[in-house]
Amino acid sequence: MTDLPKSIRINEEGPREGFQFEKGPIATARKIDLINALSHTGLKQIQIVSFVPPQNVPGMADADEVVSGFTPNPEVAYTALWLNERGLQRALGHDEKLYLFGSIGLTCSAPFLLRNQKRTMEENLEAQRSMIKMYQTQGIAVRRGSLMAAFGCNFAGDIAPALVAEMVGQQLDMAAEAGEVLEYVSLADTMAWATPLSIQRVVGAVRAKFPDLKLSLHLHDTRGMGIANAYAGLTMGVDTYDAAVAGLGGCPFAAHKGAAGNVCTEDLVFMCNEMGIETGIDLDALLAAACVAEEVVGHPLPGSVKSGGTLKALREKLRAH
Amino acid sequence: MTDLPKSIRINEEGPREGFQFEKGPIATARKIDLINALSHTGLKQIQIVSFVPPQNVPGMADADEVVSGFTPNPEVAYTALWLNERGLQRALGHDEKLYLFGSIGLTCSAPFLLRNQKRTMEENLEAQRSMIKMYQTQGIAVRRGSLMAAFGCNFAGDIAPALVAEMVGQQLDMAAEAGEVLEYVSLADTMAWATPLSIQRVVGAVRAKFPDLKLSLHLHDTRGMGIANAYAGLTMGVDTYDAAVAGLGGCPFAAHKGAAGNVCTEDLVFMCNEMGIETGIDLDALLAAACVAEEVVGHPLPGSVKSGGTLKALREKLRAH
Repeated sequence: MTDLPKSIRINEEGPREGFQFEKGPIATARKIDLINALSHTGLKQIQIVSFVPPQNVPGMADADEVVSGFTPNPEVAYTALWLNERGLQRALGHDEKLYLFGSIGLTCSAPFLLRNQKRTMEENLEAQRSMIKMYQTQGIAVRRGSLMAAFGCNFAGDIAPALVAEMVGQQLDMAAEAGEVLEYVSLADTMAWATPLSIQRVVGAVRAKFPDLKLSLHLHDTRGMGIANAYAGLTMGVDTYDAAVAGLGGCPFAAHKGAAGNVCTEDLVFMCNEMGIETGIDLDALLAAACVAEEVVGHPLPGSVKSGGTLKALREKLRAH
Repeated sequence: MTDLPKSIRINEEGPREGFQFEKGPIATARKIDLINALSHTGLKQIQIVSFVPPQNVPGMADADEVVSGFTPNPEVAYTALWLNERGLQRALGHDEKLYLFGSIGLTCSAPFLLRNQKRTMEENLEAQRSMIKMYQTQGIAVRRGSLMAAFGCNFAGDIAPALVAEMVGQQLDMAAEAGEVLEYVSLADTMAWATPLSIQRVVGAVRAKFPDLKLSLHLHDTRGMGIANAYAGLTMGVDTYDAAVAGLGGCPFAAHKGAAGNVCTEDLVFMCNEMGIETGIDLDALLAAACVAEEVVGHPLPGSVKSGGTLKALREKLRAH
């Protein structure tokens, strides 16, 4: 409770995470509508597309058109995801609109890495070293470490907090070897294994080894723990969170069984507002964007505050009486 | 983190809270199916009906038939809700199947009390004293205090933690005056105003005044804070929670805007299991009951673990390989 940060930063990932997950095709213009709506909520960073092969992720086939089409707000950093040089080259084609930075992406689970990226742990270290060289060739700073499956894995089971801390060390070493300094490391609960207690344990283990390193959490709400896990992160002083407006990427329908939505941006902002933690975000504008998100995907999305309503609205009504 | 209890007790309220809320009529036999399913999950207490006037709550018109029809498990205490002597008389007609005890029910918000029960604070104190006398006449022990709107109110706004502590004191005094001893006091977030921080503040204020009093939390998930609030309660050592299987009483559809489901039983059990807190509940059996609940109401219910799946299942699959 004493460690709650005064303010946090939220990196919005709804457009990228959400549209990637949706089954039906979504018109490019509608994707742009959502990005434009999010641009005026006070969010400082929005991940809008991923540059991946269309045959792998058909929902991102129009990534170039989306980036060309949206209207940037100069106060917002728009980011994109890519997994290799081909993807980066596409992103570089939009460098006037995108905030490009390099990441060192490791995974705490060897079987997941093999399945997901067809690499061994050793091969992935090598691949990341090549990516760093590629970033340096392009003059792109390497700012972030990201660590997938940091809280457990469907293919490896539980992940020891000590392993997470060790792999954070590998990322810091790789960056240092290349003369780069990571601004922060993102710990991802990729398969929704985390609980508040494991958040505390893993963050605690990393903190014990690297007390000055800034951490960020990427949380999924598949098992309903998203907001509780974010709260656990706040109690540990973590001040940067990925989140998705309306809980994009998830779906309350049983037909989308196990759809792994990110923790919902507006529910997180609501909690922070009520606990006196600054987010810089206008919750009403964000809720309006959440309604756009729901319209765009054409089905209910899992966020709660968009149906439950804010307390600010109730307090204002009471004051008016 | 250090105050997490070793075990908790969950009072299941799904059948009562849920069926009361549902719009469509539900066949009595289906209500009984759910109660029977819940009876073999390890839950030790299940609230199954409320004895209230059918014209006020049509969904509870068949309360007598429900109680007559279900098959009790001798290890489970089945409870009911009533608001006056007429309701209690109906409950007494089933005293071989129901666990009857008296409650002292206060509300932290005068305008909500007036609206909800058409009484002033003073009138309610008088009414509660009459109820205590009625319980004593019937030989029913007064075991519980319950405090509605303890974390905020749509009609009064924020509620000061000091007021909650004061009203807990009123309940303890009323019980003592009548020669009764309350086993615990239930703090209810009736209109879903709580956040983890207010849970800590209110529980802390009550604890500071009554350090030995056992507390229970009744949490709603209307704004997505249910599990995070339960976790905050756990960090304060609170070891008794009301919950509703599948999040009965709520609904992810926008059409049920603001439907105030209780915190979801199986999501709470999942979190406790993963954090090493005993609940005595078989999560797989509970998930099966959650599926029955969804069938019975005929629409998706908000619980997450029923679609996200347990980690136990994944760990077993990994061990089998």
